[in-house]
Amino acid sequence: MTVRAPAAVGMRLEDVDTPALILDLDAFETNLKRLAQAVPHRVRVRGHAKTHKCPEIGKRQIAAGAVGLCCQKVAEAEAMVEGGINDVLVSNEVVGAAKLERLAALARRAKLGVCVDHADQVRDLAAAMQRAGAHIDVYVELEVGMHRCGVAPGEPALALARAIQGSPSLRFAGLQAYHGRAQHLRLVAERRAAIRAAALSVQHTRAMLREAGLPCPTVTGAGSGTFMFEVELEAWDEIQPGSYVFMDADYARNEWAPPMPRFEHALFVLATVMSRPGPEAAILDAGLKASSVDSGMPGVWQRPGLAYTRASDEHGWLELAGGNNAGAQASAALPALGDKLLLVPGHCDPTVNLYDWYVCVRGGVVEALWPITARGALY
Amino acid sequence: MTVRAPAAVGMRLEDVDTPALILDLDAFETNLKRLAQAVPHRVRVRGHAKTHKCPEIGKRQIAAGAVGLCCQKVAEAEAMVEGGINDVLVSNEVVGAAKLERLAALARRAKLGVCVDHADQVRDLAAAMQRAGAHIDVYVELEVGMHRCGVAPGEPALALARAIQGSPSLRFAGLQAYHGRAQHLRLVAERRAAIRAAALSVQHTRAMLREAGLPCPTVTGAGSGTFMFEVELEAWDEIQPGSYVFMDADYARNEWAPPMPRFEHALFVLATVMSRPGPEAAILDAGLKASSVDSGMPGVWQRPGLAYTRASDEHGWLELAGGNNAGAQASAALPALGDKLLLVPGHCDPTVNLYDWYVCVRGGVVEALWPITARGALY
Repeated sequence: MTVRAPAAVGMRLEDVDTPALILDLDAFETNLKRLAQAVPHRVRVRGHAKTHKCPEIGKRQIAAGAVGLCCQKVAEAEAMVEGGINDVLVSNEVVGAAKLERLAALARRAKLGVCVDHADQVRDLAAAMQRAGAHIDVYVELEVGMHRCGVAPGEPALALARAIQGSPSLRFAGLQAYHGRAQHLRLVAERRAAIRAAALSVQHTRAMLREAGLPCPTVTGAGSGTFMFEVELEAWDEIQPGSYVFMDADYARNEWAPPMPRFEHALFVLATVMSRPGPEAAILDAGLKASSVDSGMPGVWQRPGLAYTRASDEHGWLELAGGNNAGAQASAALPALGDKLLLVPGHCDPTVNLYDWYVCVRGGVVEALWPITARGALY
Repeated sequence: MTVRAPAAVGMRLEDVDTPALILDLDAFETNLKRLAQAVPHRVRVRGHAKTHKCPEIGKRQIAAGAVGLCCQKVAEAEAMVEGGINDVLVSNEVVGAAKLERLAALARRAKLGVCVDHADQVRDLAAAMQRAGAHIDVYVELEVGMHRCGVAPGEPALALARAIQGSPSLRFAGLQAYHGRAQHLRLVAERRAAIRAAALSVQHTRAMLREAGLPCPTVTGAGSGTFMFEVELEAWDEIQPGSYVFMDADYARNEWAPPMPRFEHALFVLATVMSRPGPEAAILDAGLKASSVDSGMPGVWQRPGLAYTRASDEHGWLELAGGNNAGAQASAALPALGDKLLLVPGHCDPTVNLYDWYVCVRGGVVEALWPITARGALY
């Protein structure tokens, strides 16, 4: 059921079939370097594979200095280990007998970590690991402002850490502290304030653990929108950015100012104008099955004056950005039937999850095809 | 890169790994029957495979009376023909040399149709078919109110029909007239009015074709929200409903009253409560990579008082529907860690496109696993 790649190595970009997921290798490599340059040596980088779902990208993150990868799902972790990644943190809770059995089997093949936020999870995880003769690093997830998973800072985290410590097949590895809602606060000042509040919870809990004689080896967390604030507050040992490798349209709406480095758009959807029904719009062959619209419509790359205004399942509407009035610049005329153009996905993670292949392009030529082996790895 | 099925035949529903795409076979079969009973014999049914992307479902639509299937993409049509479907209409324009070559190759293997809305498409299609020694049915797409693809009714359609007629490898098969925006107008009266306006365009164009000596064998179009209005107005020969097989949460918000038959929810996402961080919410392991949110959040199946309020990539928030006040019914308490429940996807088409398998269930037991062979068939 794997879809054929829409391109072949050596092909020119304009000959790639559409819709196709394009990775600009120069921009991607720039992003790897910018992150490595921005993060001081004392902080480890663990790139998040939920974004790219591709061992080839993970290997390049590791070559650029990352200690390993994060995943959100056991099936993603399986795909990464299968692809040659030997250090994976499932930065999420894993619940259910079948999943725990697979996690334990995987923990015999690679260095693995996982999160918990409930004593029942510790019990079930310990039992599954013991049955498999496996060991795993366990992080207590702290609620630090996103109101999703995680226990309250302080005593509840301490209780879970004790339960982990008491399980021979588990190793208490530290705290998972990720503030998802902070990532897209638009202003640098807003993001810094949110992470400062999270840091207080982290520091309070870490101190309590230390006093209880439970050293906390690692505090891990952070995303592409905030990681330099986690770094400057010195409460995190490890960061988990994912989207920085691609930089999508929604992240581009953030204010990017020091200490955050700027990243380049490296991920695109190549689309073709498949209909020119009139002067109002050009219709593209890329709709919401080609670029996820949960965080807004895709941007139009390097075609000023054009806007992608609306998506149906298999179609996208391209219109003049200022409306279709007579004063519109000639340079902003709608493209012709058969023209191809690049879109910048609104949200990279769910867009990547729609494709089987990255078409990797450099200088307008297809250099490689990387399989998205964890595409659809939901469980 | 195909993901393993999250279930095995004979397994109980509650043992299926999550998130999983569940097809309730009884409800699905009921929907097939209701459509067949509602549509008079003079109108042909051509089920839309853009919704289900699965030859197994297509075969059952044909067994229930459909003459064949529709697809939106050449790659979908390839998957359907590969899966044993011999009559496929690509109810869309196909633009680009690579796609036309594949379409022509496919037209040598099965009865194929395609749409056009521009003279250049007719020229390129004719050339590709001639090179392959293939023939294809060609429909002129009319713009009937959705402002997407399609030519204006009357003279522009006539000009294209003439161009088709003049190409030996093409057969003018009629008109494609689909009013997508009408499908989710909430009231029956609104939908009927929209289709009545579309019917005037269809009838005007058909009359003009007849007067020009160009008989129009088939007018095809309609969707799950309106098809009985196309039927009652007697301007369509063939209907293309897709979502009726599943009935998603967005379609359920329509008014369903005669002449439209009611369909049952047959498609679900099985999810597990993976975190119970506090009294406010239960966190599910199914987020926007498990159920597309472009048309709203999924519904919660047969758990009155519970609402799925928010999705992130891999997580969903389950809350008490009326808020978390003290007066909430005990029966509506949030489910416990590890509990599983069924969600009704907000929009079935892009949700199906996230999965590799239908887990087909009857009476609480897995009866079959159907591969979604056109999943990701974008081009």
